[in-house]
Amino acid sequence: MTVSLGELAVRFGCELRGEPEVLVDSVGTLARANTRAVAFLANPRYRRLLASTRAGAVVLDRRSAAHCPVAALVADNPYATYARIAGVLHPRRTAPAGRHPSAVIAADARIDPSAHIGACAVVGPAVEVGARAVVGPHCVLEEGVQLAEDVVLVARVTLCRGVRVGARTLLHPGVVIGSDGFGFALDRDGWVKVPQLGAVRVGADVEIGSNTTVDRGAIEDTVIEDDVKLDNLIQIGHNVRIGAHTAIAGCTGVSGSTEIGCRCQIGGAVAIGGHLSICDDVHITGTSMISHSISKPGVYSSGIPFEEAHAWRKLVARFKRLDALYQRLEVLERAAGQDPSAAPAAASPDAAEPEDGAHE
Amino acid sequence: MTVSLGELAVRFGCELRGEPEVLVDSVGTLARANTRAVAFLANPRYRRLLASTRAGAVVLDRRSAAHCPVAALVADNPYATYARIAGVLHPRRTAPAGRHPSAVIAADARIDPSAHIGACAVVGPAVEVGARAVVGPHCVLEEGVQLAEDVVLVARVTLCRGVRVGARTLLHPGVVIGSDGFGFALDRDGWVKVPQLGAVRVGADVEIGSNTTVDRGAIEDTVIEDDVKLDNLIQIGHNVRIGAHTAIAGCTGVSGSTEIGCRCQIGGAVAIGGHLSICDDVHITGTSMISHSISKPGVYSSGIPFEEAHAWRKLVARFKRLDALYQRLEVLERAAGQDPSAAPAAASPDAAEPEDGAHE
Amino acid sequence: MTVSLGELAVRFGCELRGEPEVLVDSVGTLARANTRAVAFLANPRYRRLLASTRAGAVVLDRRSAAHCPVAALVADNPYATYARIAGVLHPRRTAPAGRHPSAVIAADARIDPSAHIGACAVVGPAVEVGARAVVGPHCVLEEGVQLAEDVVLVARVTLCRGVRVGARTLLHPGVVIGSDGFGFALDRDGWVKVPQLGAVRVGADVEIGSNTTVDRGAIEDTVIEDDVKLDNLIQIGHNVRIGAHTAIAGCTGVSGSTEIGCRCQIGGAVAIGGHLSICDDVHITGTSMISHSISKPGVYSSGIPFEEAHAWRKLVARFKRLDALYQRLEVLERAAGQDPSAAPAAASPDAAEPEDGAHE
Repeated sequence: MTVSLGELAVRFGCELRGEPEVLVDSVGTLARANTRAVAFLANPRYRRLLASTRAGAVVLDRRSAAHCPVAALVADNPYATYARIAGVLHPRRTAPAGRHPSAVIAADARIDPSAHIGACAVVGPAVEVGARAVVGPHCVLEEGVQLAEDVVLVARVTLCRGVRVGARTLLHPGVVIGSDGFGFALDRDGWVKVPQLGAVRVGADVEIGSNTTVDRGAIEDTVIEDDVKLDNLIQIGHNVRIGAHTAIAGCTGVSGSTEIGCRCQIGGAVAIGGHLSICDDVHITGTSMISHSISKPGVYSSGIPFEEAHAWRKLVARFKRLDALYQRLEVLERAAGQDPSAAPAAASPDAAEPEDGAHE
Repeated sequence: MTVSLGELAVRFGCELRGEPEVLVDSVGTLARANTRAVAFLANPRYRRLLASTRAGAVVLDRRSAAHCPVAALVADNPYATYARIAGVLHPRRTAPAGRHPSAVIAADARIDPSAHIGACAVVGPAVEVGARAVVGPHCVLEEGVQLAEDVVLVARVTLCRGVRVGARTLLHPGVVIGSDGFGFALDRDGWVKVPQLGAVRVGADVEIGSNTTVDRGAIEDTVIEDDVKLDNLIQIGHNVRIGAHTAIAGCTGVSGSTEIGCRCQIGGAVAIGGHLSICDDVHITGTSMISHSISKPGVYSSGIPFEEAHAWRKLVARFKRLDALYQRLEVLERAAGQDPSAAPAAASPDAAEPEDGAHE
Repeated sequence: MTVSLGELAVRFGCELRGEPEVLVDSVGTLARANTRAVAFLANPRYRRLLASTRAGAVVLDRRSAAHCPVAALVADNPYATYARIAGVLHPRRTAPAGRHPSAVIAADARIDPSAHIGACAVVGPAVEVGARAVVGPHCVLEEGVQLAEDVVLVARVTLCRGVRVGARTLLHPGVVIGSDGFGFALDRDGWVKVPQLGAVRVGADVEIGSNTTVDRGAIEDTVIEDDVKLDNLIQIGHNVRIGAHTAIAGCTGVSGSTEIGCRCQIGGAVAIGGHLSICDDVHITGTSMISHSISKPGVYSSGIPFEEAHAWRKLVARFKRLDALYQRLEVLERAAGQDPSAAPAAASPDAAEPEDGAHE
């Protein structure tokens, strides 16, 4: 779509430093944008890239604007403003209303006439599909699934029985929502399956990445609240609740019955144990192991960055001998007439809180 | 389904403390069950919830039964007994015998007349499907796949050529069994593919969670024995063997050619290296790195729980300087007339067993 | 296929120690190969298995050949030679040219007459499929996808709009390429979606394992270069570039905008942060956390191998008290008249480079 810089400035409340009638029709990177493209600068670290840009305009903040050799769209939050401008210049394709003849649709499914049902989609009994919703090719909607208006299932999304999805939520290929939670009771002869009888409620404005899985609750529902963003290949266990506006990066797993608050940001490859409670506004850096609850907003970490392999092996060997190190220190302390038990924080290691295995 | 407490007590060998003719028709949590629902108490930590429950009956052990204000179904293993009762009250839906007209079925596939083949399923040549088996919508069964009786493929399960699945096994959406193992030989010009010629044998009473993958063997078969339970998003490499009754939680990876014994319990996000042997009755807590074999039953761990981010960074910095710490200690020991080499376990770190990278 | 040892020796440049007219028709392990099968010995650790083998011939190196009781095919790189021989004896099945009647194919898709389009495949507008390419059952190719000659999509592969795939590349079931990258800008009211406008370019001779996901670029393309090998359940973020001949094992995640060089080997369950640069010829062992760039070829590690759980808990408790340990050491050093600040590498932990969370 083609728009003028003036129109963008007005629509998104930017200060325009440049000619309002200049037209743009796309976005680009600072390094490669052409004169019809809008670029952005959100991180001051990249300010040096401004000097050589040939973009039609750059979205940036007031401080960086002084260094901008081309038209500037000055915004308080340049990244969010860029995102909105990109959405105008490159609108998401819509799918035509109607049902592909190859779709298999139960007679009693209630599908809004403005919705799209794609090729080979399978829509089960008592399913409801809201206005303008898109059920892409190869999606499977089991009995009783409900999609609110403007939901988009890109392709090959599986929603098991009774899953409800809120308005404007976007689910990517390979997502599975509502498969059985991992519940088994150990008996003398092996495992007894615990029937998984809850469902999953997914809020509005949620986005869930490719091949991510969300299990149905054991008795009550698993809940993903509004505006939650889940990256690819994430596992959400049964009975979990994820609060509004929380974002989780790829390869992270959340074990069953854990509650995560609102506005949390959780990095990739994090392992979160079961039956925990994580309060609002918690940030967890990538690869952390979360084995107990968090009741105070803040940033939390574990995970030790890499070393060259030989140096790392030495460190691990040292680590494995920490007990002996403490003993040697105590020998020295005693020889020096000091009392090891009086040393700071010299508590017995056995007094340590036992760790729950994350993800049990 | 509606049953009386008396019938449940008789059927599952519970002692009933309450009126046998009371009827129940569902399960619920202690907090929310109504008078027609059965709840359970398996963990004494939650005993306080008993006081206010309005459940029709609670399944619990003898010690907790004394505190139960409503009818009690007393069982030695309350969780397993609850699981069985839930299975009676909420039986798994069955699928009707027959083939959906949209399914694509090879002429020589042998499908039991009592089996169900769902919408858009693709069944290849020489496939065998046993009595009452369910091949859900969008499943793909390549040439020569064999399903025993009562197997359930929920939806969108892919079984590659020659995969065999035992009776009553339940596979969730997105499961892929029998794709090529990760086998390449490095040559002067790059990688040479090593043909993956084995298949996968999956035992009876197995359950495999959404989007989990099991690779076919390189020459012989990958084997998942009876009653193994695999959660979602697990990767099982080629030539692996997993012993009967072993359960593995989500996001765990098992590298090629590793053998895991029977009755093991493996937490989530565990990384298990290749060519290892793990004996029977091993428990591994979540996030552990298993880089060498385990020959003794027991509980094993690695993974360090999180800290507030600033405190964690300090710990990591201290850890990275452990070598210097040891040197400083030795200086003190020498000054004190002690012999560092005589200190307990003061072996050279270089003598440490080299770690194999898990998952190589 | 049946071939003589003489033919194999000539074709693959091996020295044959044995009768050239002996026929073989399959491969097998040293332990179980029969007299019609070729086995291999690549790792001298397994040389003891030679004594009892009944294989028709064994592919091995010169040093091991002296111990071989049966015919030997002597090769410089026995594993690569075995791989090639296995490819001859067990050729990959080909699929017949043509389109399955259940496939849904856009009128303007350009499909080479020698290509195969499988059951229920969905081929969108302006898609191009090259000579002898195989689009297996249930694959979804969105608008503008391009497949070069001899590409194989085994089954149920999803390629989103504009994805290009190079010659001979092999994609396994459940792979998703080109879904939206994880890009959101935080604004006062929540997340604003950043449109993901790039595509994905996959080179020639690439192999990608089951349920692995590769996101499309935000503005420019995500790039997987020639001969890259990705195992199962790997997540590749948007804007990533992976250099030629690099191999990555399962369950690893690469965060957005990271560049990985050529000929790297990356173990399983590795977490690689975003916006990093990893040079050519880097090896990373399994479970490592890569939180900053690597500019020197070599082997890198993190991840601490497991211990028996009680011993591990003690180690963790010791680790968590490292700060106190350093303080106690300094007390002793001062008492001994030594200057802690002069100790080797006794830098302040606060001076440590802040860790970026991998995968943020």
